[in-house]
Amino acid sequence: MTDAKRSDPAGDGDLRRIAEHLGRALLAAGCTVATAESCTGGLVGAWITSIPGSSEWYQGGFVTYANRAKTALLGVEAGVLAQYGAVSDIVARRMASGARRRLGSDLAVAVTGIAGPGGGSPAKPVGLVYIAVDTAFGSRCTRHAFEGDREGVRRSAAHAALAALVAVLEEEGAGRP
Amino acid sequence: MTDAKRSDPAGDGDLRRIAEHLGRALLAAGCTVATAESCTGGLVGAWITSIPGSSEWYQGGFVTYANRAKTALLGVEAGVLAQYGAVSDIVARRMASGARRRLGSDLAVAVTGIAGPGGGSPAKPVGLVYIAVDTAFGSRCTRHAFEGDREGVRRSAAHAALAALVAVLEEEGAGRP
Repeated sequence: MTDAKRSDPAGDGDLRRIAEHLGRALLAAGCTVATAESCTGGLVGAWITSIPGSSEWYQGGFVTYANRAKTALLGVEAGVLAQYGAVSDIVARRMASGARRRLGSDLAVAVTGIAGPGGGSPAKPVGLVYIAVDTAFGSRCTRHAFEGDREGVRRSAAHAALAALVAVLEEEGAGRP
Repeated sequence: MTDAKRSDPAGDGDLRRIAEHLGRALLAAGCTVATAESCTGGLVGAWITSIPGSSEWYQGGFVTYANRAKTALLGVEAGVLAQYGAVSDIVARRMASGARRRLGSDLAVAVTGIAGPGGGSPAKPVGLVYIAVDTAFGSRCTRHAFEGDREGVRRSAAHAALAALVAVLEEEGAGRP
């Protein structure tokens, strides 16, 4: 787990470039991906599918905004949510593995965080986002502290989620984390 | 079912305004909503959750880009997909009812269409989009012929999906279609 800080919200051009990059990397690896999103609310799926031909590498995903949805749709245990909170390393990993299992994809990415303006606390401030990538070989999770307003945090989180998938594909090959 | 045509793609301001409007209408009615998206890929959920406080009315949703995802996640029968095609009135309604049932929300909206640039045919051209709203009282579905490029079709479809929810809430009250 790394602790990354980013202050410049991702623009449309940044998001399009990383989504295109991810599409090429998935196509080259012959891999498919699924998404599990909380604070981004569908933004990661929307950017993946902004690329023509994305049905080749994307089957679908989940928006699990409420805790109840994380449990019902992704199988995140209620006890884990109660003990660690929805914005945590373990919940991000559980969301990703749940999405990958349910859609039978090679990779899955999960995003859970606090976009603000409300919902922050000293321990978990606005801008805190966990991003997990799950593959058949295990999962990796990164912790981010994004700056900016609600939309800025969400856009930076979506960018980081797409970049995390690219990193797994390029650094390790064939989705091995 | 109505046949609507719209040529000006929805801008960020249009989408934000209709998402805010929907939030107020759902809050006033004490109703929750779920999403089931194919061609919009998460854009409807992303705009719903762009509004602070949206956890009051939005629990989550599904991105079912592949037919297999429509069946596995939403229970759309493979036979219905084979007979009518993914871009059809009946599949839009099935997606909406599947999402509503699985998330236990008061309303659900589904979007299925052809964003282009590929995938069109004389019978189902690029820009054809079906939008269904499902409630405990039944479902309604509208057929749209959007113009513009891939992003324009997707943005117009997301706007129409949010507007369809507002219409059900305001025209009929308490989600009665």
